[in-house]
Amino acid sequence: MKSWIYHVPYEPYAYALTETKVRIILCVAPGKAKSVAVRYGDRYEQDLNHQVDMEFDGSDGQWDYYLTEVICEKRRLKYTFQIRLKDVVMWYGESAVSDELKEAGVFQIPYLCTRDIFGIPKWVDQSVAYEIFPDRFAKGGMRSHRNSFVPWSSRPTSDSVYGGDLLGIEDKLQYISDLGIDLLYLTPIFKANSNHKYDTTDYFEIDPQFGTKEDFRRLVNKAHALGIRIVLDAVFNHCGSDFYAFQDVREKGLASRFWSWFFVHEDSVDMEKVNYETFANGVATMPKLHVANPEVEEYLLSVARYWISEFDIDGWRLDVANEIDHVFWRKFRHTVKSIKSDALIIGEVWHDSLPWLRGDQFDGVMNYIFREKVVRFFVTHQDNARTFIREMIRLLHKYPEPAIRSMFNLMGSHDTERILTLAKGNIDVIARVLIFQFSFPGIPMIYYGDEVGMEGAGDPECRGGMVWEDHLQKRELKLLVKRLAYLRHSETALQGTRMIFSEDKRGQFEYKRISKDGLSSVYVKFNFTERRQALPHGAQILLAYPKGCVKANDLLPHGVVIWKDAT
Amino acid sequence: MKSWIYHVPYEPYAYALTETKVRIILCVAPGKAKSVAVRYGDRYEQDLNHQVDMEFDGSDGQWDYYLTEVICEKRRLKYTFQIRLKDVVMWYGESAVSDELKEAGVFQIPYLCTRDIFGIPKWVDQSVAYEIFPDRFAKGGMRSHRNSFVPWSSRPTSDSVYGGDLLGIEDKLQYISDLGIDLLYLTPIFKANSNHKYDTTDYFEIDPQFGTKEDFRRLVNKAHALGIRIVLDAVFNHCGSDFYAFQDVREKGLASRFWSWFFVHEDSVDMEKVNYETFANGVATMPKLHVANPEVEEYLLSVARYWISEFDIDGWRLDVANEIDHVFWRKFRHTVKSIKSDALIIGEVWHDSLPWLRGDQFDGVMNYIFREKVVRFFVTHQDNARTFIREMIRLLHKYPEPAIRSMFNLMGSHDTERILTLAKGNIDVIARVLIFQFSFPGIPMIYYGDEVGMEGAGDPECRGGMVWEDHLQKRELKLLVKRLAYLRHSETALQGTRMIFSEDKRGQFEYKRISKDGLSSVYVKFNFTERRQALPHGAQILLAYPKGCVKANDLLPHGVVIWKDAT
Repeated sequence: MKSWIYHVPYEPYAYALTETKVRIILCVAPGKAKSVAVRYGDRYEQDLNHQVDMEFDGSDGQWDYYLTEVICEKRRLKYTFQIRLKDVVMWYGESAVSDELKEAGVFQIPYLCTRDIFGIPKWVDQSVAYEIFPDRFAKGGMRSHRNSFVPWSSRPTSDSVYGGDLLGIEDKLQYISDLGIDLLYLTPIFKANSNHKYDTTDYFEIDPQFGTKEDFRRLVNKAHALGIRIVLDAVFNHCGSDFYAFQDVREKGLASRFWSWFFVHEDSVDMEKVNYETFANGVATMPKLHVANPEVEEYLLSVARYWISEFDIDGWRLDVANEIDHVFWRKFRHTVKSIKSDALIIGEVWHDSLPWLRGDQFDGVMNYIFREKVVRFFVTHQDNARTFIREMIRLLHKYPEPAIRSMFNLMGSHDTERILTLAKGNIDVIARVLIFQFSFPGIPMIYYGDEVGMEGAGDPECRGGMVWEDHLQKRELKLLVKRLAYLRHSETALQGTRMIFSEDKRGQFEYKRISKDGLSSVYVKFNFTERRQALPHGAQILLAYPKGCVKANDLLPHGVVIWKDAT
Repeated sequence: MKSWIYHVPYEPYAYALTETKVRIILCVAPGKAKSVAVRYGDRYEQDLNHQVDMEFDGSDGQWDYYLTEVICEKRRLKYTFQIRLKDVVMWYGESAVSDELKEAGVFQIPYLCTRDIFGIPKWVDQSVAYEIFPDRFAKGGMRSHRNSFVPWSSRPTSDSVYGGDLLGIEDKLQYISDLGIDLLYLTPIFKANSNHKYDTTDYFEIDPQFGTKEDFRRLVNKAHALGIRIVLDAVFNHCGSDFYAFQDVREKGLASRFWSWFFVHEDSVDMEKVNYETFANGVATMPKLHVANPEVEEYLLSVARYWISEFDIDGWRLDVANEIDHVFWRKFRHTVKSIKSDALIIGEVWHDSLPWLRGDQFDGVMNYIFREKVVRFFVTHQDNARTFIREMIRLLHKYPEPAIRSMFNLMGSHDTERILTLAKGNIDVIARVLIFQFSFPGIPMIYYGDEVGMEGAGDPECRGGMVWEDHLQKRELKLLVKRLAYLRHSETALQGTRMIFSEDKRGQFEYKRISKDGLSSVYVKFNFTERRQALPHGAQILLAYPKGCVKANDLLPHGVVIWKDAT
C-alpha cells in the first residue's frame, strides 16, 4: 500500500446515511491528485457499473479530502477509487494501489443495515444551545431567599450557594427565547449536596433548592411552548456519597446488598482513607458506580427512561461519559431512542471521540477540541490562519457527518475559563469567535452569561451569578448572538456540513457554507489586515461586525461580514 | 498533523488487553525514526511519569510499526510519543507533532472498562482447525446407503448428494485426532434441502441424512473426550424457502403472522419472480431474514443458545456475517459468551473486518485475505518476497491482537478452489504453504482433504468425497500436517503473535516467532535459491522439508526448515 493515499470502508471514511445512500471520503496526500472518482456497483454483480467524480472537500495539510455520496438501491456496495495523477491514472481498492483496476480490488460496504445507520434528531441542524448552571442563573420570583445564600454578585468559591432555581429559569424563558435559543442544557438538577449537583443523592428527585417536580414539569412545558427543548445532565459514572445505595454500604459494609454497586477495596468504607474507586483521584464524595453490574445498569437506564417518559425532556448530556463502558452506552442509546426517537445524546468527551460516535452510542460530544483550536487562533494567536483552517478541516473529517451535525460547539462551560477572560476582556475578539462558532457545522452552544460578557477564570470562578443588570451587560455581544441565532435558523446554508475555505498568502480567509440540497450558499469573510478588502458586487450583507464595517462594497480593516449572493 | 506519523487511541492501534494493560502501536513512515518511545501516566495526574521504548514490529512499506504494552494500575491512561529522528526529537500527541511535549498534547484511553476488553478463548493459541463438509467427509458404518447417493468418487455437481453423515465423522475422529486437529468446523448440519444445507428448514433439527440428535450428542462427547472442540455453522442471514416461517408466508401472504420476518415486496410471495429479498441476487430458495425484527432476533439467539446449552458445542461460525447488522452480532456475542465464556465466534467476512473485530462482536474471521496473499506469493508468484512480507506485516497490524490470535487462517474452504489445484498439483508448493500457514499467528485451518492432496476447482468441484484410500492420499502432506500440528501444540513460540521477518536482497527471507512471555523463539527459513544457505551452528531442527534438505548445517536449495536455538 502507498503512503500517499488512505481510506477505510467504515467510519469516518465510509458509512450509510440512509438505507440506500453511502457517504465516501478519500484521503490523498496534498496536491497529489488532479482529480478523483469512485467506480462502484452491487457486490453481487461482476462489474463496477457506475462512476462518479468526487468533490474536493478541503485539506488539513496531511490529507486532501475528497467526498461523494453514492446511491446503492440493493444496499450492497463495492467500490474502487480512480485517482488521476499528473500523467497516469491509478486505482485504489482494498488489495492494492495499482494501474490496473483488477489488481486494486474493491472496498466493500456489505449491506446497509437499518439498525446500524447513524440516526440523529433532525432538529439539530437549526438548533442553538445554551448551558445553564441552575444555582447561578436566576432566582425564582417569590422563593429561594434563604439567608444561607451568598450575595448574587459575589465571587464564586467551590462551596458558595447562590440560590438559583427552576422558577428562575422559567422566569427567564422569554429572555432565552428572545436570544434565539431553542435548546437548553441544564447541569444537574437532581438532589445532591454540592452547589454543582454532580454528586447525586437521588436520581429521581429534583433538588429541593431548585424546586419541585411540578416546577420542572411546568418549566419543560413552557419551554416546549416556546419551541425550546431541554437536555438534562446524566451523572452516571459516579454518584454522591449520600446516595442511598452508597449510604447502605457505608453502614453495613460487606453485608450491604449494594456492596457490588461500587468498588470498595476493603471490607468497609473508610471515607477518610477513600478506600474505594471515585471520580478522578480520591474524590470521597463521588464514589464510582459499578455500571457493569446489571442492577446498577438497570437502575441507571430507568433514570434515563423516567425523565423522558414522565417529563418529556429532549435528551441527555452525559457526564464523564468516557469512563463508562461502551456496552452501557449502547444500551443507553437504545433505551433513550426507543422512547423518544428524536432525543439528543451528547457525551462529555474532551478528546478524540470516534469510538463513541459511530452511530451506536452518542449523537455528538461537548466539542472541546473545537474550542481549543478556535482559542489558539482567535484569542491567544498561537496558531496562524493556515494552521487554523487545517485544524478545522481536520475536525470536519474526524467523525461521521451525523456526529458533526450534532456536536455541541462551545466556547466555554462550567469546566473552563470564560472566553472573555481568556480574551482579556476584548469584545471584538469574542465577536469574531461567535461569528465563527455560529457559522461552523454543528450546534453552537453558549455558556450562560457569555452572551452578555461575563468573565471568570476556571472553576469555580467561571460559575458566577448571571448578570441581569442591563448596564452591566455587553449589549453588542447579546445583539450579535441574537442576530447569529436568527441566521442559524433562517439560512439553510448554515445548516449543512459543507464548508469551503479559501485563503490567500497574507493569511486572509473566507469560507462558504452550502445547504444540504446544494442550492443555497452563505459566505463569511474576516479582514485581519489594515487594508480594505473588496466584497463581490451585489453581495447581500446578512451581518457585519462591527457595525458599519462595510463601505462602498469594501470590508474595512478588522471587520467581519456574512453575506450571500443577491437573489 | 504530519503525514509521516499516524496513531489513533483505539483499535487497531490502542486498546486494553486486560484491566490494567494497554497495547499501543505507532505508525511511522518507513525509515524515518531512529527509535520511538512512549511517555505515559495517569490521566488525573499532571505529568507523564513513565517512559518506555517501543519495539520495532515490522514495516509494510507504508508504515514502520512500533509496539509496546504499558501497565496502568488506575485504568486511566494518557500518553505522548517521543520520536527520535536523525537530529531532532519530536513529540506526537492528539493535538500536534511538535518539538515541545506540551504542544503535542496527549492521547487518552480514558478508562479500561472491563466489559470493553476483547476476551477470546485461551485455547485458540494452540488450536489447529479442520473444516468438514458433512455430506462429503465420511459415511457412517452401517447406514446411509440410500440408492439416491452418487458414487463417493464421482465429480461433484451442485446437486449431487454423497451420503456423508455424523456417524461417518464419528468413525473418523481418531483419524482427525491423529492428524493433530483439536477443532472441527462443520458446515451446516441442520435440516435443509440442499447438499450444502445453507438453506435451513429447521434450525432445531439435525438433517435426517446426517443423523439424529443422539448421533450429534455422541459425536460432540467423543470429540471432547479426544480433546477436539466442535464449531457449527450459523446461517442467520437467510433461511431455506421451506423454513416454517417462510412457508407460512408463502401460504398466507400478508395475513401470515411471519410476514414481517422477511422482506417481500408485494402482497404475496412469488417464487418464480423472486419478489423478496434473498441471499445474493434472487436466490429463490434462500429468503433473507429480517434479523432486526425482535421476534426473528430472539428466535436466532435461541438457536445460538440451544446448541451450546443442550449439546455443548464450542462455538459458531457465522455465514454471510457481514450482511447482518452489528446490533445483532453484539447481542449474539453477549448471548453466546454468557452461556459458554470460552466459546469461539468466527465470522464469514472476506474483506477488511475491523468493524466486527473490536471485541464486541466476533473473535476472528475466515481469513481469506491471508489466503489471497499467500497464494499470490507461494502459488501464483504474482507477488515477490518483499511484497509478500509487507502484506503479512500489514495483516498482523490490521486488527487487535486478540483477533489476530483467533483468525481462521485457511488455504481453502467449500467456497474456494482447492489449493493443490491452484498449485497445479505441485506438492512442494503446498508443503511450503502449509509450513507458512502453521507458523503464522492465528489458527491454521485445514479444509478436509487438503491434507491428503485432494483437488478440485471452485464450488461445486472443491466439494468432492474425502479420499480415504491410502494409495490415493499424498502421504507426505499428511505427515507434514501432523508434524506442523504437533509443533503448533508443543512450541509456545508458535502460539504468540510476534513475528519478525528478515529478508536479504536476493529475496531470501526467514522469520522468528516469539512466545508470549518472550522467553522462547522459533525460526523458519525458506531457501528459494539454487545455492545452499547456512544455518546457525547448533540450530535444533524441528522440521525440514523436503526430508534431508539440511546437510552439514546448510539448507539445500528449495528447502524449508523450522528450528530453534539449541537449549
